[in-house]
Amino acid sequence: MTKLDESDIIEIFQKKLGNKKFISEDVEIFKIGKNNIVTKVDTFVQSTDMPSKMKVGDAARKSIIACVSDFAAKGVRPRYGIISLVLPRKISHKKIIEMSNGIKRAVDEFNIKILGGDTNEGKEIIINVSLFGTTDKIVKRNGAKSGDIIFVTGPFGYTASGLKMLEKNKKSNQFVKKIIKSFVNPRPKLDFGVINRRYLSSSMDSSDGLSTTLNEMANQSKCKFVINNIPTGKDMIEFVKLNKMNLNELVFHGGEEYEFVFTVSKKYKAIIKKNALQLNTPIIEIGHVTKGRGVFLETDEKDIPLKDLGWKHFRK
Amino acid sequence: MTKLDESDIIEIFQKKLGNKKFISEDVEIFKIGKNNIVTKVDTFVQSTDMPSKMKVGDAARKSIIACVSDFAAKGVRPRYGIISLVLPRKISHKKIIEMSNGIKRAVDEFNIKILGGDTNEGKEIIINVSLFGTTDKIVKRNGAKSGDIIFVTGPFGYTASGLKMLEKNKKSNQFVKKIIKSFVNPRPKLDFGVINRRYLSSSMDSSDGLSTTLNEMANQSKCKFVINNIPTGKDMIEFVKLNKMNLNELVFHGGEEYEFVFTVSKKYKAIIKKNALQLNTPIIEIGHVTKGRGVFLETDEKDIPLKDLGWKHFRK
Repeated sequence: MTKLDESDIIEIFQKKLGNKKFISEDVEIFKIGKNNIVTKVDTFVQSTDMPSKMKVGDAARKSIIACVSDFAAKGVRPRYGIISLVLPRKISHKKIIEMSNGIKRAVDEFNIKILGGDTNEGKEIIINVSLFGTTDKIVKRNGAKSGDIIFVTGPFGYTASGLKMLEKNKKSNQFVKKIIKSFVNPRPKLDFGVINRRYLSSSMDSSDGLSTTLNEMANQSKCKFVINNIPTGKDMIEFVKLNKMNLNELVFHGGEEYEFVFTVSKKYKAIIKKNALQLNTPIIEIGHVTKGRGVFLETDEKDIPLKDLGWKHFRK
Repeated sequence: MTKLDESDIIEIFQKKLGNKKFISEDVEIFKIGKNNIVTKVDTFVQSTDMPSKMKVGDAARKSIIACVSDFAAKGVRPRYGIISLVLPRKISHKKIIEMSNGIKRAVDEFNIKILGGDTNEGKEIIINVSLFGTTDKIVKRNGAKSGDIIFVTGPFGYTASGLKMLEKNKKSNQFVKKIIKSFVNPRPKLDFGVINRRYLSSSMDSSDGLSTTLNEMANQSKCKFVINNIPTGKDMIEFVKLNKMNLNELVFHGGEEYEFVFTVSKKYKAIIKKNALQLNTPIIEIGHVTKGRGVFLETDEKDIPLKDLGWKHFRK
């Protein structure tokens, strides 16, 4: 029996269902009348997405946030949502209340109207969220041009470390609290995405890992991405040294950051920075786009290829 | 710990998410621009919806069919779909191919374009389907009027018996093959629903059970439904006698029939019957709507209340 990873499975379905020229995107779009309807479905699975120490209310909130993050990267505001639940028979009244509170928090934060949903019984908690919005156009993954600058909407590495700390249940100092919060309670930069939509040449949600995101964008855009600045904070660098961890692994391959990567032409750099300041979005310039292929990390000696080692379901 | 059933859980979420005047419908509707977008999410869960003898390809087909059935009842044609999968890590390549074939069969039958989806790892197979269409208006559950006639789009009782036979793995004669097929391979009457949309005063998908459907429609329409004809076939009546089963239980409370119940004003009876003949849809007149409340089964002696004893998740 050959082991399949997520890409293999998706390929089987794509071939069968006739999407021959399929280009992978953060959201799906279809046209009804004159309107583009933008939608995204995201599934939160207890056994793979929810560490045992995570509260069910935070998990419920995060199931919505994961979808919002894809909308943020495309510059589209989600307006409506449908929630489909699978719940184990033995789940307590209290946990259901906590879940409804978590969902309430998320939809209030982003002003989403929940239309309805369905409830099912199964072996573990599964929260399936569909969000809907409309737009004239989305920011695609494949629009990066040679000469563009590459940005991210926030620092990386914190969530992966936060997840490790959450699992270890180590004594909590301020920093540990911060990184656990970054994992449990992420905040996509929706306003920033929507407001800057017209300036971005390409963009992609980074929750599958920064290396995965950069490779997908470079590949789809048929360009080379050169990274010369590792987007993280001093506190993270110190924490990594102290705990003898690998910084690049956490930053580039950790995943679970509900930020996005985007590229802009140099002529829009000033306005993007001004908007980021106004919205208090801590964008970080991490490199530039050039002719060629692949993603490379610039060092003093030579450029090192940055492989796609982010999260894929079913990977061994 | 109090045991919650599906209605309790839905109520908790509705209260929390602010749908105070929530009226339960087969589909959700939202407006984007001038268009009403109709959508339905349905979740197929291996441990509760898939008997061990059911093939995974048939299960995959049925996950789409369940959604199509809701569209049929509302008179709306689904045009697009998104499929979200949860798959156990050990699932074989062969089963994934079978699933993609089952989905392909369903989308070809009903001419639905699959836009995309996501793939996740979990403890059991879960197929989450969202379908989308558009319409000027839907046929609601709450529009039945005193004097209307009540119809169903096909016979009842076969699926529940089919499920029992599938589980027992009894020797298959023609009838057993027929009832197993009715469970495994249901066919919603989409064309009939779409074409007769303007004539129906109310309608509802019956897959949760005929008694549940009739009670919900009578309750929402603030009318009394009187049933004077049990919608099943002679072969079913014989089978029930032979096996000492309870006919009413199978017909009214069995569920899994992807048919719909509808009401029409007497003035449209002739045109409905003509359209049914042309589309080869075996509609059955089962009773009439009158003033009052509740659902009653007319017998020679007196009218017996027909309680809602259909399928609810989490019910003991």
